[in-house]
Amino acid sequence: MALIVHKYGGTSMGSVERIRNVARRVAKWHKAGHRLVVVPSAMSGETNRLLALAKEISAQPSPRELDMIASTGEQVSVGLLSIALQEEGVDAISYAGWQVAVKTDSAFTKARISAIDDQRVLADLEAGKVVVITGFQGVDPNGHITTLGRGGSDTSAVAIAAAMRADECLIYTDVDGVYTTDPRVVEEARRLDRVTFEEMLEMASLGSKVLQIRSVEFAGKYRVKTRVLSSLTDPLMPLDDEMRSGTLITFEEDEKMEQAVISGIAFQRDEARIAVMGVPDKPGMAYQILGPVADANIDVDMIIQNTSVEGKTDFTFTVGRGDYQRAMDILTHQADGHVNAQTVLGDPKVSKVSVVGVGMRSHVGIASKMFHTLSDEGINIQMISTSEIKISVLIDEKYMELAVRALHKAFGLDQT
Amino acid sequence: MALIVHKYGGTSMGSVERIRNVARRVAKWHKAGHRLVVVPSAMSGETNRLLALAKEISAQPSPRELDMIASTGEQVSVGLLSIALQEEGVDAISYAGWQVAVKTDSAFTKARISAIDDQRVLADLEAGKVVVITGFQGVDPNGHITTLGRGGSDTSAVAIAAAMRADECLIYTDVDGVYTTDPRVVEEARRLDRVTFEEMLEMASLGSKVLQIRSVEFAGKYRVKTRVLSSLTDPLMPLDDEMRSGTLITFEEDEKMEQAVISGIAFQRDEARIAVMGVPDKPGMAYQILGPVADANIDVDMIIQNTSVEGKTDFTFTVGRGDYQRAMDILTHQADGHVNAQTVLGDPKVSKVSVVGVGMRSHVGIASKMFHTLSDEGINIQMISTSEIKISVLIDEKYMELAVRALHKAFGLDQT
Repeated sequence: MALIVHKYGGTSMGSVERIRNVARRVAKWHKAGHRLVVVPSAMSGETNRLLALAKEISAQPSPRELDMIASTGEQVSVGLLSIALQEEGVDAISYAGWQVAVKTDSAFTKARISAIDDQRVLADLEAGKVVVITGFQGVDPNGHITTLGRGGSDTSAVAIAAAMRADECLIYTDVDGVYTTDPRVVEEARRLDRVTFEEMLEMASLGSKVLQIRSVEFAGKYRVKTRVLSSLTDPLMPLDDEMRSGTLITFEEDEKMEQAVISGIAFQRDEARIAVMGVPDKPGMAYQILGPVADANIDVDMIIQNTSVEGKTDFTFTVGRGDYQRAMDILTHQADGHVNAQTVLGDPKVSKVSVVGVGMRSHVGIASKMFHTLSDEGINIQMISTSEIKISVLIDEKYMELAVRALHKAFGLDQT
Repeated sequence: MALIVHKYGGTSMGSVERIRNVARRVAKWHKAGHRLVVVPSAMSGETNRLLALAKEISAQPSPRELDMIASTGEQVSVGLLSIALQEEGVDAISYAGWQVAVKTDSAFTKARISAIDDQRVLADLEAGKVVVITGFQGVDPNGHITTLGRGGSDTSAVAIAAAMRADECLIYTDVDGVYTTDPRVVEEARRLDRVTFEEMLEMASLGSKVLQIRSVEFAGKYRVKTRVLSSLTDPLMPLDDEMRSGTLITFEEDEKMEQAVISGIAFQRDEARIAVMGVPDKPGMAYQILGPVADANIDVDMIIQNTSVEGKTDFTFTVGRGDYQRAMDILTHQADGHVNAQTVLGDPKVSKVSVVGVGMRSHVGIASKMFHTLSDEGINIQMISTSEIKISVLIDEKYMELAVRALHKAFGLDQT
């Protein structure tokens, strides 16, 4: 009699036949006696279609109106899924975010959930209904529709699971779990049965696309037991098998077993590096350089500043490749002006490769093993950045696959 | 500084370029100093696409979930139109029905508007904004989304105009007004500059598809000055010309001029006639016959019962052709049972032709002129039904065009 939240991605909702399969799976869980809240995404392609219409009308459409438009994709999905559930003999009811209500701030197109009122949903669950709630959206204090940004349905599902103290949040997607690295790059990549939420957080931030990073943050903050699993399996597979499939995101202290040192190799292919050379080493310089970049809504990833020599220093950072030219334009303009940098160098063809693992906290030598492995392959490291549970290096794009494969083998991730 | 409500149909909203034209037209009115509320329909084809998805999943989808799904078409439209207006330099904001709120009863897929809260809209208008509101939908007392049924955007627009005491409600559509009859049938059909709401009501109920009948009822009940005009004209045409175009729906007592005797010829092609012959003429018989038909959600149009002969009577009525077979099945089943009718006769190929005009109240001889005209053409009349301002006859489908043309000429509707 557990309370379970299911989340289905756009691919899983991509056609009438797939929606029927989702309904069969949910009905199976419901008939086994569980209370179910289901959060489906918009049918695949739908959100893009809607946003393209808006972009055709205006190069810079109003974020409020974009949310008005984009939120409809999920509203269609909840209605269709409820009808499919009713066809399966399950009493189901759908709600848009504002009806629940899922309350957010007013940051249109990238709103954050502030609170979820669970009274209405609880009453429906008590009455034996399956409740289907739109992901990706909510309502702000003034009654305007907001969306959480792309991939926000993951976050909605985990947030609803947190608000309702669900026993588990199951994220159904088109992969069957979290892997030691991308199987398209390393054939020997293995699915992890468990991963800690800190590792998941690093992997998400490092480019592993399985879960949206904000959903992982939510899972960690509210300690939501979250499982990533496949929606492509037989919807009527035995429930016990399904409950053991995929990858469970756990919390360190729950773990009784010995931690693996490294859980996975993450990578981000499309990075670009920008180095502002020979800037005066004085307070406020980093802000003067990065402020205008941030103002242009460009996300900066790795940042490094070298020790200064003769009052001058080099300041290097990475951005997504799509933002490279805009960032270079801003920096070149700066270089001519008040920052007094000598040169701005850029390289739009770099990739980031990271090893991630909670276990590295208590193990020395991870960094040196990583650097040694890359050196053996003749791969030059351009930048290094570390956190408590990950080490990232920036390398030439053309060596990315080679680096991932070599590290995957060096850390024994191909061994069960 | 009038308060004006504009309504645009699905064809007018059918593409990005057409939405831009709607925005240009609205911007022109706004810049002339008027306060504007705009009610657009879903992009043409969108509502059908959404309902088809639902029907693919279930033959009898839940009406509540259908409304959840179908209401999104208009929500996309209001967002896109607001963005297009902003591109025209107009401050615009969109609202879904529940945000206004447009309050309705809980009759999903065919809800009726109970009240409209105009506070929020008024505040936006005061602030100089154009307010864009979804047609076709509202919210019931329990916060569920409802829709008003097909064509409901006309009704929404007139209801909003009534609630806000708008000076005029302009219904933009793909025809340029109300005609004396369908120009596709009679080449000489003329556009009427004015028509009374009673005539409009009869024409709508008799098959003229220009306005949804419930919107006409609303216009009459709340005395909303409503104009039907074309959205296909140059959006930047002079405002004065536009305000004189189309057909104005007026109220009899506003009319200073002499009424034309007949305003138009309406027709409904796809009718079917069912006659239950030789039923005992006793109280409750009409209900016994029609009750099961109504229970099957079949709309009955004309009803005639002849004077009884020897305690037996014939009971004849018409239904839409699409419902003919179902109605016959019900009646044939009855004939075998408790009603004791001798025979049930049916003809699925009949049409209804009507002459409509407020002027006929004070003019005798309209009926005889109508019957004489049809007789001259050798057209047999199968049924007759009259109201204060219309006379309808049922004839063989194959004579319909001929009857409409002959009557149009006989009543001088081709003369200005």
